[in-house]
Amino acid sequence: MPLPKHVFNPPFNVVRTSHVVLGVTDLDRSLAFYQATLGLHLEDRTATEAYLRGVEERQHHSLVLKTSATPVCERLGYKLASEDDLDKAAAFLTAKGLRHAFADVPYQGRTLQATDPFGTPLEFYFKMDQRERLLQLYGHYKGVQPQRLDHFNIFSPELQDAIDFYALLGFRMTEYTEEDGRDGRIVAAWMHRKGNVHDLAFTNGAGPRLHHLAYWITSPLHIIHLCDVMASTGYLANMERGPGRHGISNAFFLYVRDPDGHRTEFYSSDYQTMDPDHEPLRWSVRDPRRQTLWGQPAPRSWFEEGTAFANQPVRDALFKADVIIAA
Amino acid sequence: MPLPKHVFNPPFNVVRTSHVVLGVTDLDRSLAFYQATLGLHLEDRTATEAYLRGVEERQHHSLVLKTSATPVCERLGYKLASEDDLDKAAAFLTAKGLRHAFADVPYQGRTLQATDPFGTPLEFYFKMDQRERLLQLYGHYKGVQPQRLDHFNIFSPELQDAIDFYALLGFRMTEYTEEDGRDGRIVAAWMHRKGNVHDLAFTNGAGPRLHHLAYWITSPLHIIHLCDVMASTGYLANMERGPGRHGISNAFFLYVRDPDGHRTEFYSSDYQTMDPDHEPLRWSVRDPRRQTLWGQPAPRSWFEEGTAFANQPVRDALFKADVIIAA
Amino acid sequence: MPLPKHVFNPPFNVVRTSHVVLGVTDLDRSLAFYQATLGLHLEDRTATEAYLRGVEERQHHSLVLKTSATPVCERLGYKLASEDDLDKAAAFLTAKGLRHAFADVPYQGRTLQATDPFGTPLEFYFKMDQRERLLQLYGHYKGVQPQRLDHFNIFSPELQDAIDFYALLGFRMTEYTEEDGRDGRIVAAWMHRKGNVHDLAFTNGAGPRLHHLAYWITSPLHIIHLCDVMASTGYLANMERGPGRHGISNAFFLYVRDPDGHRTEFYSSDYQTMDPDHEPLRWSVRDPRRQTLWGQPAPRSWFEEGTAFANQPVRDALFKADVIIAA
Amino acid sequence: MPLPKHVFNPPFNVVRTSHVVLGVTDLDRSLAFYQATLGLHLEDRTATEAYLRGVEERQHHSLVLKTSATPVCERLGYKLASEDDLDKAAAFLTAKGLRHAFADVPYQGRTLQATDPFGTPLEFYFKMDQRERLLQLYGHYKGVQPQRLDHFNIFSPELQDAIDFYALLGFRMTEYTEEDGRDGRIVAAWMHRKGNVHDLAFTNGAGPRLHHLAYWITSPLHIIHLCDVMASTGYLANMERGPGRHGISNAFFLYVRDPDGHRTEFYSSDYQTMDPDHEPLRWSVRDPRRQTLWGQPAPRSWFEEGTAFANQPVRDALFKADVIIAA
Repeated sequence: MPLPKHVFNPPFNVVRTSHVVLGVTDLDRSLAFYQATLGLHLEDRTATEAYLRGVEERQHHSLVLKTSATPVCERLGYKLASEDDLDKAAAFLTAKGLRHAFADVPYQGRTLQATDPFGTPLEFYFKMDQRERLLQLYGHYKGVQPQRLDHFNIFSPELQDAIDFYALLGFRMTEYTEEDGRDGRIVAAWMHRKGNVHDLAFTNGAGPRLHHLAYWITSPLHIIHLCDVMASTGYLANMERGPGRHGISNAFFLYVRDPDGHRTEFYSSDYQTMDPDHEPLRWSVRDPRRQTLWGQPAPRSWFEEGTAFANQPVRDALFKADVIIAA
Repeated sequence: MPLPKHVFNPPFNVVRTSHVVLGVTDLDRSLAFYQATLGLHLEDRTATEAYLRGVEERQHHSLVLKTSATPVCERLGYKLASEDDLDKAAAFLTAKGLRHAFADVPYQGRTLQATDPFGTPLEFYFKMDQRERLLQLYGHYKGVQPQRLDHFNIFSPELQDAIDFYALLGFRMTEYTEEDGRDGRIVAAWMHRKGNVHDLAFTNGAGPRLHHLAYWITSPLHIIHLCDVMASTGYLANMERGPGRHGISNAFFLYVRDPDGHRTEFYSSDYQTMDPDHEPLRWSVRDPRRQTLWGQPAPRSWFEEGTAFANQPVRDALFKADVIIAA
Repeated sequence: MPLPKHVFNPPFNVVRTSHVVLGVTDLDRSLAFYQATLGLHLEDRTATEAYLRGVEERQHHSLVLKTSATPVCERLGYKLASEDDLDKAAAFLTAKGLRHAFADVPYQGRTLQATDPFGTPLEFYFKMDQRERLLQLYGHYKGVQPQRLDHFNIFSPELQDAIDFYALLGFRMTEYTEEDGRDGRIVAAWMHRKGNVHDLAFTNGAGPRLHHLAYWITSPLHIIHLCDVMASTGYLANMERGPGRHGISNAFFLYVRDPDGHRTEFYSSDYQTMDPDHEPLRWSVRDPRRQTLWGQPAPRSWFEEGTAFANQPVRDALFKADVIIAA
Repeated sequence: MPLPKHVFNPPFNVVRTSHVVLGVTDLDRSLAFYQATLGLHLEDRTATEAYLRGVEERQHHSLVLKTSATPVCERLGYKLASEDDLDKAAAFLTAKGLRHAFADVPYQGRTLQATDPFGTPLEFYFKMDQRERLLQLYGHYKGVQPQRLDHFNIFSPELQDAIDFYALLGFRMTEYTEEDGRDGRIVAAWMHRKGNVHDLAFTNGAGPRLHHLAYWITSPLHIIHLCDVMASTGYLANMERGPGRHGISNAFFLYVRDPDGHRTEFYSSDYQTMDPDHEPLRWSVRDPRRQTLWGQPAPRSWFEEGTAFANQPVRDALFKADVIIAA
C-alpha cells in the first residue's frame, strides 16, 4: 500500500508527545509502583491526583494519575510549539467537525481538549509550569531512572485511517509492518514528530485503546536492575515481557504492568530520524525479528490487553492479520 | 535428608575446575562459534584439535575441541595442588577400585585420567603450560569477553551418591534444591572447591551427561551484546535460555548451544563462599524463584538435553521429581 | 548580556551537523586510529581519501579523511532540509556578501561550499548516498561503538558575533557560560538545530579553529572499554581528558587526539531540547562544575590546542576571560 | 630480591580479610557518608557505634565505626577457619613474643586481639553472628552497591619484614613492585589468602598506617553513578582519585575519603589466584602503567596521607624509593 506522504507544513505544529493522564483505582498503591519502584519523581499530589516526571523533564508532569472507579486512560497530551498553534489547532478541529473545547488544566497554560476521529481523547497545550532541574541531582535517581516520556502505542481498529490522519498533522512514519503481496495492508506503524523513532505508534486491533506509554532510559543495566528489584519486592507478576531487543526501533525493552494493568515500556537504543529524506523501514509481518530480534516471544496478554480510553467504547479490529504488535 | 558433612582434609587436593574436552563434528564450524562469536582466545590448533582460553586464564587451555564422529564430552579436567596430590589421587582411586591411568596430554604435565563411580571421565593434573597474559591486552577482547571457566553442571541418575562421593573429595555444598517433607530428596546440588558458588553441580536426571560448562564474565552488558551479535549473525536458534537471573547462585545468565548442541552458560554475579561456616542455602523444589528469579521459563530442551560422555551409556534418572534443573 | 533571540523561521533550514573533512598526514596511520581502534565503519577509501560513519548513520559518511601536507580541518558539513533550502542558502550568502560556490562532492548531491563571516569553511547539501543499515549488524560493532556524529566545537575570537550569526540561521542556545556582573560577556555557548544540547558550540579563544568533533555513544561502559584498549595498544598519550562528567550538557565524556592532533569527543547522557520554551541554562564562569561536575581538571593542551581551518589564519582571542572551555 | 616462599601449611589458617574498626569523630556524619551515600547496609547502631556490611556479606559487619576523639584505625579483623586455629594463633603469638589477649567483642565469638611485630592492631575470630541474606533484596541496593570487603592496604616502614612475616602466616604474593637492578628492593606487595589478588597489601612509607580499605563492586557503572551522586550531594572534595584502571590487579577503581579522612577504595575487575603455581607478577617501579594503566595521576595526598592505628606511633619510611604506592 502507498505510504502517506510526509506533510512538512501541517495545520499546526505538534512538538512532541508530552504527558498522559491515567485513571487508577488506588492512588497510594499506584505511587508505590510508579514512584517507589519504577523511580519516577513525584512533583505534586493531592488526595486524588499525583503528578510525576522523569529526571530529564523540566516540565511539571509527564504522567498524571487520578483516582478513578475503573482503570482508564483519560487523555493523551501533546505539546504545541506556540499559543498561535493552539488557535490553529482549534480552527483545524472545527473545520474537521471534531469535538473540542478549551479547558482549565492545573500547571498547564491554555489547554485544548479534543477527540480525534477515532475516539481518542487528546489535549494540546503550549506552556506548562517548569520545575527544578533534576538531571544533575543524582542523589534522587532511583529504580530504572526514567529519563523522559517518549511515546504512546495505540490499538487501532482503523489503522490506515489513523495513519493518514496523523500524517496530516505532520507525524512522519519511521518503520512499519506490512502484509506481503500486492494488496498487503499495513499492520502497525511508528510515527514521530520530535526526531527519534516515534511519538506515536499504531497497531491493528480492537480499539481505540492505549497499548502502552514508554519512558526512555539511558542503559540496559537500569532495566536489569529494575527486573531484580521488581522480582524481589512483590512485582514479579507485573513484569510482562522482556528484557529483549525489538527489531523494530532497535529498542532494548521491558514492559511492566501497573497494579491496574496499565502498561509501561522502558527502553533505550533507538535512533535519530530528523533527516527529511530518512526513509521508513519496512518489516514483513512474517519476519519474526521485527518484534523480537532476540528474547522470548511476547505472552498473549501483550497482544490482547490494553487500557480503554475514558467514555470511549472499543470497536473490533477491522481485520485479523496473522500479526503481532510490536514496540 | 542430611547433607554430606564437609571434608576439610580430603584424600587429595582439588584446586578447581580447570578444563573440558569436547568432541565436535566440524572443527572450523565450532571455532566460528567459540572463537569468532563467543570471543574465546584460540591459543593453538591443529587439523583436528583446538585449544582455547578466557582472557583471565594464564594456563594454556580451558576448552579443548577435538574432531569427533559424534558430539561427546571426552573429559572433565581438574587442577590439583601439587604433584604429590596426583600420586595421592592415584592411591585413592586404586583403593576405591576406580579405573585410572597416567596419560600423556599435550601442554599438561603428568596427567591422571580416571572414571568416577558413575562413569564420568575425569582427568587430574597439577601443571599446565602458561602463556602470555591476556588480561590487559584489551585490544583482543571480543564477543562476550569470556573471563575464565567456572564450573560444570552434570545430569546424574544417582544424585545423592554423586554428592556424597564428591563431598568425600572435599567439594562443599553451597546451595541445593530439595523436595519438601520429611523424606524429601535432594534434587540438585551446587558444590565448590575454589571459594565461589560452584566448581561442580549435579541435577537428578538421565545421565551421566554434561548439562553445561560455564564461563564467568564481568558484566551483564557483555551478555546483552552477545545476544545482539548472535541474533544478527545467524545464531539466534543457538540462544537457548536467558538472559535472566537465577535465584540459585544469583547468576545473571545466558545459555547458548554450540553447532553440535553442547551447552555453555555465561554468567556473572555469584558470591564468595570460602568461610568454613558458610551454610548451604536450601531451596524448595516448589519455589520457582530458585530457577528464575525473573525471566522466561526455561524451554523443554534445557531440562532434557545434554552431552553424553565418551563411551559412557546413559542411565535413566533414579526418580522423577517434580523438578527443574537450574544454574 | 542579552541572549540572541531564537529565530523560528531562518532564511534556510539546517537540519543538523552532518560531517567533517579532516586533512591528515598519513592516511593509513589515521585509519589504524579511527577505524581499528575507535571503531568507526570504513565505507569507502581511495589512496588519499577515506569515508567513515557510525553504526547508526545511514548516510555515506560523517567523517572524511584526506591526505594533506599538514593537519587541517578542510570543512564542516551541514545537512539542509531540501534542495530548495540550498538555493535559499545561496541567496542568503549572496545577500550577506559571503564567499560561496557550488561544488561537486563525491557521494553528495548538489553541494554549496561557503565561508562564514569568521573564516570557517562550511558546506551545505541536502542529499547524500545512503548505505546498508549497520545498526543491527552487531557483529561489526567494535571499539567505542560510535553511534553518530553529534556536534562541532569551535574556538572563536569573535564569540558574540558568532553566536549572533548562527542564531540568525536558526541555531538555538541551550547552555552558556558567562562572566558575572552587569557587563559580563558570554564566554562559551552551545547551540542546536536537531533537538539535543548542540550541533555547534563556540568558545572564546584564538581562532577560528576546530576544538573538537564529537560522536555520541550509548554507554559510559564503551568509553571505559576504549580507555582500556587505547592504554594497551599504544594510544595512552592520545587520551587527553576524561573520562568524567561535564556539568554543561551533562555529558559523560572522553577526549582523544588522533595521530595528527585532531580532537574527538565521545560522549553520552545529554538531553532533549526541542521545546520552543526550553530556556537556556546559564553557568557562571566561576562555577567549576560547569566544566567538570567531577573528574580531573583538563590539561592545558585542551584549552589551547585546536585544528586550524584550511587556508584560514588564526586571530587572537578578543578578550582573555578567566575562563575555561567546556564540552 | 628473593621473594618469600609460599607457606602452604601456616601455623594457623587465616581465611580472609574480614572487617575493620575505624574511630570517627562524628558518627552521624560518618553514617551520612557510608550508609546514605556509599550505600553500605547499617545492621546495628548504638549512640557510639555502628556496624555495616555489603550486600553479599552474611556476617554481621565488615565495617565498624566507633566514636573517637581523633580519627584512627582501631583494628584490622581476620577470619580464621576454626576455633582450633584461634588457639593455634595464640600459641604462635606467644612463641613469637607478640602481645595478645582474648577479648569480648559484640557479635563475634571468641576473639583474639593482637599486635603484629610492626605495631598493627589485629583481631582474629572464627565465628560471627549471621544476618538476613541481602544479596537478593535488590530493593535495598543503593549508592555504589558495595558487595563485600576485599582487602586492606598498609603503609609500612619495614616492607620486607612485613612481607616476610605475613608470608609466614600463609599470605601469598600475587603482584609486587620492585626497584630495578640486582639489589632492587621491593617497594610494594599484594598478598592474598582467599584466592583473588589480595587480602592485604603493603607499601613502603611512614607507618604503620592504613592506606585504605577496599570494597569489591560488580560494575564500573556503579562507580560512575557514585561519582555523579558524590559530586551532586556535597562530597566532590571527598573523591580523591579515579575513576581509572590500575595496571596492578587490573582494578577499575575509585578512592574516596570519609569526613575524617579515612580512605576507601571501590574496585572491580581483579582475577583468581588460587592456583599454587600462580606466579607473582613483577612490575618495575619505573613502569607508570603499574599504578595507572590509564587515568589521571594520583594526587600527592594519596601518596602521603593515611590513617594512624590506635596508640601506635608512626615511624619514618625505611627508605625513599622513587616510588608510588598503588591499588
